[in-house]
Amino acid sequence: MSKQNAFYAQSGGVTAVINASACGVIETARQHSDKIGTVYAGHNGIIGALVEELIDTNAISTDDVAALRHTPGGAFGSCRYKLKDIDTHREQYERLIEVFKAHDIGYFFYNGGNDSADTCLKVSQISEKLGYPIKAIHVPKTVDNDLPITDTCPGFGSVAKYIALSTMEAGLDIQSMCETSTKVFILEVMGRHAGWIAAAGGLAQQAEGQPPHLIVFPEIAFDKAAFLKKVDQSVKDNGYCVIVVSEGAHYEDGTFLADAGTKDAFGHTQLGGVAPTLANMVRAELGYKYHWAVADYLQRAARHIASETDLQQAYAVGKAAVEMAVAGKNAVMPAIIRTSNAPFAWTIEEAPLSSVANVEKFMPRDFITEDGFGITDKCREYLEPLIRGQADLPYDEKTGLPKYVRLQHVLAEKKLPEFKA
Amino acid sequence: MSKQNAFYAQSGGVTAVINASACGVIETARQHSDKIGTVYAGHNGIIGALVEELIDTNAISTDDVAALRHTPGGAFGSCRYKLKDIDTHREQYERLIEVFKAHDIGYFFYNGGNDSADTCLKVSQISEKLGYPIKAIHVPKTVDNDLPITDTCPGFGSVAKYIALSTMEAGLDIQSMCETSTKVFILEVMGRHAGWIAAAGGLAQQAEGQPPHLIVFPEIAFDKAAFLKKVDQSVKDNGYCVIVVSEGAHYEDGTFLADAGTKDAFGHTQLGGVAPTLANMVRAELGYKYHWAVADYLQRAARHIASETDLQQAYAVGKAAVEMAVAGKNAVMPAIIRTSNAPFAWTIEEAPLSSVANVEKFMPRDFITEDGFGITDKCREYLEPLIRGQADLPYDEKTGLPKYVRLQHVLAEKKLPEFKA
Repeated sequence: MSKQNAFYAQSGGVTAVINASACGVIETARQHSDKIGTVYAGHNGIIGALVEELIDTNAISTDDVAALRHTPGGAFGSCRYKLKDIDTHREQYERLIEVFKAHDIGYFFYNGGNDSADTCLKVSQISEKLGYPIKAIHVPKTVDNDLPITDTCPGFGSVAKYIALSTMEAGLDIQSMCETSTKVFILEVMGRHAGWIAAAGGLAQQAEGQPPHLIVFPEIAFDKAAFLKKVDQSVKDNGYCVIVVSEGAHYEDGTFLADAGTKDAFGHTQLGGVAPTLANMVRAELGYKYHWAVADYLQRAARHIASETDLQQAYAVGKAAVEMAVAGKNAVMPAIIRTSNAPFAWTIEEAPLSSVANVEKFMPRDFITEDGFGITDKCREYLEPLIRGQADLPYDEKTGLPKYVRLQHVLAEKKLPEFKA
Repeated sequence: MSKQNAFYAQSGGVTAVINASACGVIETARQHSDKIGTVYAGHNGIIGALVEELIDTNAISTDDVAALRHTPGGAFGSCRYKLKDIDTHREQYERLIEVFKAHDIGYFFYNGGNDSADTCLKVSQISEKLGYPIKAIHVPKTVDNDLPITDTCPGFGSVAKYIALSTMEAGLDIQSMCETSTKVFILEVMGRHAGWIAAAGGLAQQAEGQPPHLIVFPEIAFDKAAFLKKVDQSVKDNGYCVIVVSEGAHYEDGTFLADAGTKDAFGHTQLGGVAPTLANMVRAELGYKYHWAVADYLQRAARHIASETDLQQAYAVGKAAVEMAVAGKNAVMPAIIRTSNAPFAWTIEEAPLSSVANVEKFMPRDFITEDGFGITDKCREYLEPLIRGQADLPYDEKTGLPKYVRLQHVLAEKKLPEFKA
């Protein structure tokens, strides 16, 4: 096989460790300079390929590449953009081939979640359907932890650690004050369809009666009466109640709690905020003093409290993706396979993209307690190793803040006419 | 002076480092066993003194006392409870004297903010007005950073670090995605009257154009037109806009933005959430896609990212309080005095409580940029040293979470009839 260049892109919501995967891809590609020439990173994901905005990663120093390992966000820009079907939207794929040809790109690494796996699969089909030889490898990433086959998705372990820790810390705060102040605290977390992040809040509880006292999962239809009864009981038993709720919490009929008809002063429907919605419910029905928090992007950007397990896995899937590509694989994803729980051990194996794309992995019912408001020991056994270890982070002595790298992007010279993505 | 016991209580909102002050008080008192017998901690603050729920800190092991240094929340329970005036509510003070007499308490350490300084001052007057000799020392603590005389208030530096870091991390996230996703991000922070915490968000900005692009302070009346213009300009210039807003942001007439008339589906006024209020404003007037976060208790409980400067100061004021008490002082507060900026240096001096109680320190106008939406270099010079250093924190290898101590409270035997606080 002759030497060819590679294209790498970040897709969808970014994470605290997606750049660690980028670091794994670039560092490993540099080690395979006999087979891989330049790694071009798409500026703003796959859009960068379509509009021919290719970041030349050869211009990035060894130190800066290494610093990607500890820098959150998407260093090259990410996007929410799903390629349409190859049979109906041939022009998008023909453009990709033009760009790939113009820049001699033979490897395609796509770092993302469910939608991205689908895009990667479509690109892999260029080989067969349009006769352009390419090795397309999907690098898994999603805080939602909802990809199949892989034991977990890089990005998730760090959010899980952030949410478990934040629940624990806020719990200590509320417990201190509940005699005369806040009795109910609600933390809203990400995960619109799958409750993995909400479940991670459960790791804060290390003994009976400790927070969180309730978790509201998207996998379980919301039962208002049961919810309020449990909140009230927790306040009576413990003096307070800490609730972790998924943004995807919904009623039996599918209506999201967050869309339950709040209107602003002008009568416009106000979107968002399942935490304030639950808080108002608690106030109206139980009368307890409450507070609520919405972690939003803070949770997935929190590199400062990233899990070491997560960081290692994020790097490993980037590295493995390059190794699979140079071994001639196409349409696969490096999947993390757990080989042992005690001691925790894992390895990387290849999973066919056709089994990954568009499949969502939800919380198994036996990971959720019978009443629907907590996690089981089985769930805890699964989650705990994923948040172990504190990933290293260099700080600046003067500012007291982390030394996150900000890359100055050097774009490869454009060789083609403009294209509207 | 003969040996007497001491009373220590935590008051008002707890912080990531208030227990470090408790640690300073208890460890230092143990070193002065010639003058101080037992340190009793009030269960749930001053209420513990009134209802005679006194936690015997002699029952706490040396290791557990040391672990208070790294445990957030209020280990003995705190309260929101302000003693009434000594002339009109004599019975409260007479009860305090009864409890102090019954347990031979000659030292009173009160760990809190503005209201607590007032309570501490009133207790100090027992000496003079009711003839009971007591040394009352106020131990400063408040995330709001609004006590006078002292350079800063323990608890603030850690919140400041959390907010600066969270703004920086979320900023990297939004920057990655702004081409096709969220363009405006709003982070709501604490500080109902003073904008110190919001100002700390400004530390995330280390070069022109970096987040945050706007800070909304409670010291500056909210100007909707100017705000929207600046948001729009930031999106046009930078591709996105990150906003840090104080919960106390308000219009010229004093109306809080958070109270601006949001109603739920039942027509009830919905409280809270200046972030969603601004988000709706951005959506309605500019049409940009937005996200918002409300950090709430997470910010003040975040011991995992506590500032080392803050931790050292929190311990130092606890230690100094005991040293002042055994030196016979009354009605004073150990104040942190900055002696040098480069290198950063500080010392502890005593401040008369009469000059501290009920005085609020706001952001000076020259700490805020002329347009009212940013911090000046002078402000940065003041804030930066307060967030320096990462305070040590031991983690449990198995759970991946910090080893926070949970004390089992041993109460001193009650000697008096019941009292309704």
